[in-house]
Amino acid sequence: MESSIPQEILKPISEATLMRLPAYYHYLVTAMDSGEETISCSNIAQRFGFTSIQIRKDFESIGAAGRPKVGYMIKDLIDVISKTLGYDNTREAFLVGAGNLGRALLGYNGFEVYGLKIIAAFDNDVKAQGSSVSGKSIFPLERFKELTSRMHIQIGIITVPYDKTQEIANMMVSAGIKAIWNFAPVHIEVPDGIIVENVNMAASLAVLSNKLQNKERLL
Amino acid sequence: MESSIPQEILKPISEATLMRLPAYYHYLVTAMDSGEETISCSNIAQRFGFTSIQIRKDFESIGAAGRPKVGYMIKDLIDVISKTLGYDNTREAFLVGAGNLGRALLGYNGFEVYGLKIIAAFDNDVKAQGSSVSGKSIFPLERFKELTSRMHIQIGIITVPYDKTQEIANMMVSAGIKAIWNFAPVHIEVPDGIIVENVNMAASLAVLSNKLQNKERLL
Repeated sequence: MESSIPQEILKPISEATLMRLPAYYHYLVTAMDSGEETISCSNIAQRFGFTSIQIRKDFESIGAAGRPKVGYMIKDLIDVISKTLGYDNTREAFLVGAGNLGRALLGYNGFEVYGLKIIAAFDNDVKAQGSSVSGKSIFPLERFKELTSRMHIQIGIITVPYDKTQEIANMMVSAGIKAIWNFAPVHIEVPDGIIVENVNMAASLAVLSNKLQNKERLL
Repeated sequence: MESSIPQEILKPISEATLMRLPAYYHYLVTAMDSGEETISCSNIAQRFGFTSIQIRKDFESIGAAGRPKVGYMIKDLIDVISKTLGYDNTREAFLVGAGNLGRALLGYNGFEVYGLKIIAAFDNDVKAQGSSVSGKSIFPLERFKELTSRMHIQIGIITVPYDKTQEIANMMVSAGIKAIWNFAPVHIEVPDGIIVENVNMAASLAVLSNKLQNKERLL
């Protein structure tokens, strides 16, 4: 997509910074709850094992400025991070695949802290259809497109088995979904401009299991 | 830990390769189920959008060899990947933190495909203690050490809130846990030799939300 907005106004934030922001956010909320008002980079650096320079750069890139000898106002930092990550503006999402993992995510309300609310699920299994998990209905897959468009849903969550993942991604894109959060353990292909983020628990577990196995072999 | 076993016997496998193996595994199982016996690197490459050379290197690094014009025996590949990732040898894990996310993972049996079985949970909330999720009991935190040692548990899963994460990691290490699968959205410090793998859903969601926000700003 073409745009004439200059780079310095858009201030692109690196993925590494974005990934650290939720942890800062939690830390700052805890600090504010315990009555603190200001905080220094070195306080935060110490907690996370990063350098102060790293923390300062992260805050600079989201447009937060501290004051010499005072540090950062905790409330301001929390506001800026909330805006950057959209925590202040809850988005609704549809989930496809009401199997084990899908139901686990449907039953988990913790994403709402992060500005994401899963409002319904879809599955082609007739046994699942019509039922609900934590008050969230499971609809037949055929209704995905209609409901996505009627409710202006932009985020689709994929929790279908491996061999259905690409097909569901295609369906989501053709229904108008702009961002896919993919929990299936496979790579998906999408057209340019569609956002994909993967949570690959199988891959993470693979690394953990293999390291543990190597460790045992050494003993 | 010191070891005199030469590098070429240990064949260290890169994390990038390890992270791709579960997807290959699923693909190969599906292919075998549909009656196929052999497969070529280019078949697999096409499916995943990698190059054939990449696939061949991944297979080489786990000790799987194909034959010219024949390709790889699918069954052999599945066996080698299973062994490499420990899928053939289910490990038991304890989970700490029976809140929303903890309960969701307890209720999810999908990790058993990947050789991991969560057998019990621990929480310091007296209301949770004594109850169970999907037949898995929730014990008081004080029993973690005793049960870890009695049952020879090596893997601990952390699903506690941000501000308790380091404390629980310390407790796990002192109880003899060798590998921590951390679902809390923060970095934890552990002694050398303890394995930590993070599944940071908050970080992944942060990247997705920010990209979506930038996209909207451009429209």
